[in-house]
Amino acid sequence: MKRFLSPADIGDLHQALQEALAIKADRYANVELGRNKTLLMIFFNNSLRTRLSTQKAAMNLGMNVIVLDVNQGAWKLETERGVIMDGDKSEHLLEAIPVMGCYCDIIGVRSFAKFENKEDDYSEKILQQFIDYSGRPVFSMESATRHPLQAFADFITIEEHKRTERPKVVLTWAPHPKALPQAVPNSFAEWMIAAGYDLTIAQPEGYELDEKFTQGATITHNQDEALAGADFVYAKNWAAYSDPNYGKVLSKDMSWTVSKEKMALTNNAFFMHCLPVRRNMIVTDDVIEAPTSLVIPEAANREISATAVLKRMLESL
Amino acid sequence: MKRFLSPADIGDLHQALQEALAIKADRYANVELGRNKTLLMIFFNNSLRTRLSTQKAAMNLGMNVIVLDVNQGAWKLETERGVIMDGDKSEHLLEAIPVMGCYCDIIGVRSFAKFENKEDDYSEKILQQFIDYSGRPVFSMESATRHPLQAFADFITIEEHKRTERPKVVLTWAPHPKALPQAVPNSFAEWMIAAGYDLTIAQPEGYELDEKFTQGATITHNQDEALAGADFVYAKNWAAYSDPNYGKVLSKDMSWTVSKEKMALTNNAFFMHCLPVRRNMIVTDDVIEAPTSLVIPEAANREISATAVLKRMLESL
Amino acid sequence: MKRFLSPADIGDLHQALQEALAIKADRYANVELGRNKTLLMIFFNNSLRTRLSTQKAAMNLGMNVIVLDVNQGAWKLETERGVIMDGDKSEHLLEAIPVMGCYCDIIGVRSFAKFENKEDDYSEKILQQFIDYSGRPVFSMESATRHPLQAFADFITIEEHKRTERPKVVLTWAPHPKALPQAVPNSFAEWMIAAGYDLTIAQPEGYELDEKFTQGATITHNQDEALAGADFVYAKNWAAYSDPNYGKVLSKDMSWTVSKEKMALTNNAFFMHCLPVRRNMIVTDDVIEAPTSLVIPEAANREISATAVLKRMLESL
Repeated sequence: MKRFLSPADIGDLHQALQEALAIKADRYANVELGRNKTLLMIFFNNSLRTRLSTQKAAMNLGMNVIVLDVNQGAWKLETERGVIMDGDKSEHLLEAIPVMGCYCDIIGVRSFAKFENKEDDYSEKILQQFIDYSGRPVFSMESATRHPLQAFADFITIEEHKRTERPKVVLTWAPHPKALPQAVPNSFAEWMIAAGYDLTIAQPEGYELDEKFTQGATITHNQDEALAGADFVYAKNWAAYSDPNYGKVLSKDMSWTVSKEKMALTNNAFFMHCLPVRRNMIVTDDVIEAPTSLVIPEAANREISATAVLKRMLESL
Repeated sequence: MKRFLSPADIGDLHQALQEALAIKADRYANVELGRNKTLLMIFFNNSLRTRLSTQKAAMNLGMNVIVLDVNQGAWKLETERGVIMDGDKSEHLLEAIPVMGCYCDIIGVRSFAKFENKEDDYSEKILQQFIDYSGRPVFSMESATRHPLQAFADFITIEEHKRTERPKVVLTWAPHPKALPQAVPNSFAEWMIAAGYDLTIAQPEGYELDEKFTQGATITHNQDEALAGADFVYAKNWAAYSDPNYGKVLSKDMSWTVSKEKMALTNNAFFMHCLPVRRNMIVTDDVIEAPTSLVIPEAANREISATAVLKRMLESL
Repeated sequence: MKRFLSPADIGDLHQALQEALAIKADRYANVELGRNKTLLMIFFNNSLRTRLSTQKAAMNLGMNVIVLDVNQGAWKLETERGVIMDGDKSEHLLEAIPVMGCYCDIIGVRSFAKFENKEDDYSEKILQQFIDYSGRPVFSMESATRHPLQAFADFITIEEHKRTERPKVVLTWAPHPKALPQAVPNSFAEWMIAAGYDLTIAQPEGYELDEKFTQGATITHNQDEALAGADFVYAKNWAAYSDPNYGKVLSKDMSWTVSKEKMALTNNAFFMHCLPVRRNMIVTDDVIEAPTSLVIPEAANREISATAVLKRMLESL
């Protein structure tokens, strides 16, 4: 596997699941596979779960790890040819990225949507440059439009807890004080659809996601209808995708908060969220603390999805 | 050992000393013990000695290490239930801490007293949350009220240099330009008392420490009387503990600086300090540079105390 | 090898080259050599290539690595004796540096020229303190006046590409918007001379380097004459060295930019630069992207030079 952005990169999800569960049963089983191989983790944005779980995953495989924190403000790469570089950009990506590739075997990149330019964000401008110029296998540690390690972990978590072959999964928008990228809901939708689940997406008007991620899902503005009969409820906030409101907060409607009353509409559903979560905005205390809350098991599975992805990449070196 | 805050956690000090000396004689003797075990070091405050010595200790034991620097300003955890999290706190400790526990086997935490609220500081609010919610063994890398890795290293250093079975040890306050926490003197006092030494604490009026750490020590406001016959002089500044002056600087009296003249009152005592030290405030150049100064051996023993603590924790996993 | 600052420290360059090429052919051949040995990398300044390549080098040798980033503003070390430390300096170098030496086997230091005081810079005040007080072998990861890991990598790169026994190598000044230290040109000059190459240094008037690094080179203010017949062109900006202009930018003359027309004067020369490089200031896009550009191979050889240096130091422990 030379890149990891979407479920298509990982191929058969059932097989990937079996690999993940084998890792979970014995997470150091492949500790010789990564011997004398180096993972470079590049963070253009802050990270807690991804930083820790991906380092742990690399260690599970016996890899060496180098973490590079890039202050997005301080390290401005020139991306255009022909520019006289007499300003604040001290290096061109055409040098910086191949050089980073020199010192490692696999690269993970975190680079969030900036909400300055929709086309830059949705073309994955920064991540794509690493794919094109680093000469190494590259995986997303959450990029502008996707967070596949999270969605893979969510998929594993659902498979571990599902009570029917094809569960009803509801992805519901919920209120939040700030504008958040669409990376998590985009990836969640595309993985749930790839897994063959019955996916419903509920959101207020104006919050439609990019259709390329949601083909096959039922889409509604009625949260209560969506929740009826749900087996899994995945709450998440995101800012608007559609023009002319790209990156804007259109609603903070607290009636969308996932509460005990909302969960009562479901088929005794499990509650999920990628974390970090704003309590009593996204979800109430009682729902996130209930035995049916999977937020900690999901986070724990981040180590497993990352180990599975790195294992595939090591095998392809 | 599931937590390490005080000498009570480590049990018999004589046995702990023997373990420490065995480690010092062959510091990689247990390099297989930590194989495929991960230490997570979380810093809410800056660190030089603790960061380096604890990493080295984990490496002595063959552990993997992940270091997480938390900008206390930037990463504000909500701690109350029921709060609508629409402000600057993006995560609740009830999610953040169990998640950190998912990716490691042992957790070290540094979190200083803030001097904003004495009860928060003296209840070890942050450290205790890691103990309660992480699901992992937790040790202090200097918390609000204690610095046990330092005091354990000090104990080892005294045992290596003492000339009598029960030395006279003097902990003396000394002047400093800023308000410093009581963690070091608290732990030093409780370890010296646990070791059965003859401990005297000298400080200006108003600088009494919390009695729970000093039961059994002789306490005086007369530094010269305290120093008479001392075998070890441990200098340290701390801010006031007693109400209503908690966290305040009450004195910068330079007559308390440990000088050659002061050391002449002692039984040719060794000089000790945990570092970093303000020269010619806490201690004069000639005293800290004398052959009887133990400041570097103490610092070197930080690696040993940390290795001994991690070894105990690994053995209990 | 107890220190690494200049070619004199590494001795016979031909033998060092053979060691480097052996490492490049099998970079994990010595992975047992560094077992249970710890490298401490201390950065007083930012780093990309040096940080990554030196960590990779240490991993090639099976070493443990601790990276310490020191904010030069925040961590001010007192260096004088007798000072009453009641200001913003919280630690004296006479404690800080020996303590750092306690927790490692080898130390790498990055500390750039500050351009505040020429004598401080050219006496390598900070690096020298580590050599004098740490008790450990010390190597420069770019210090005030030298960047020997870069120059060693450049030497390897030239040896890999040279078409004659004694190539003509031209070090040419080129324009840049900011004042840059002389460390790279100083080291490049002294390594090229030590390698026995035909070295010409071209620069505008006022940009003469310290003669101690350039003895044996041909020095000219005429770039075109210098380039005639060159086999290798090494472009670099530096600020003035000579008094009273130390650290100043005297020229941004764009006629010194290395262009296709300039390269046409050479003997089909290879183009070199240490990176990061300002395109279309130092060098045009077409020259740096040409097949004769060695900027990426040079950077890749940073791993090799660092591995060779660490190997020598490990062998001498």
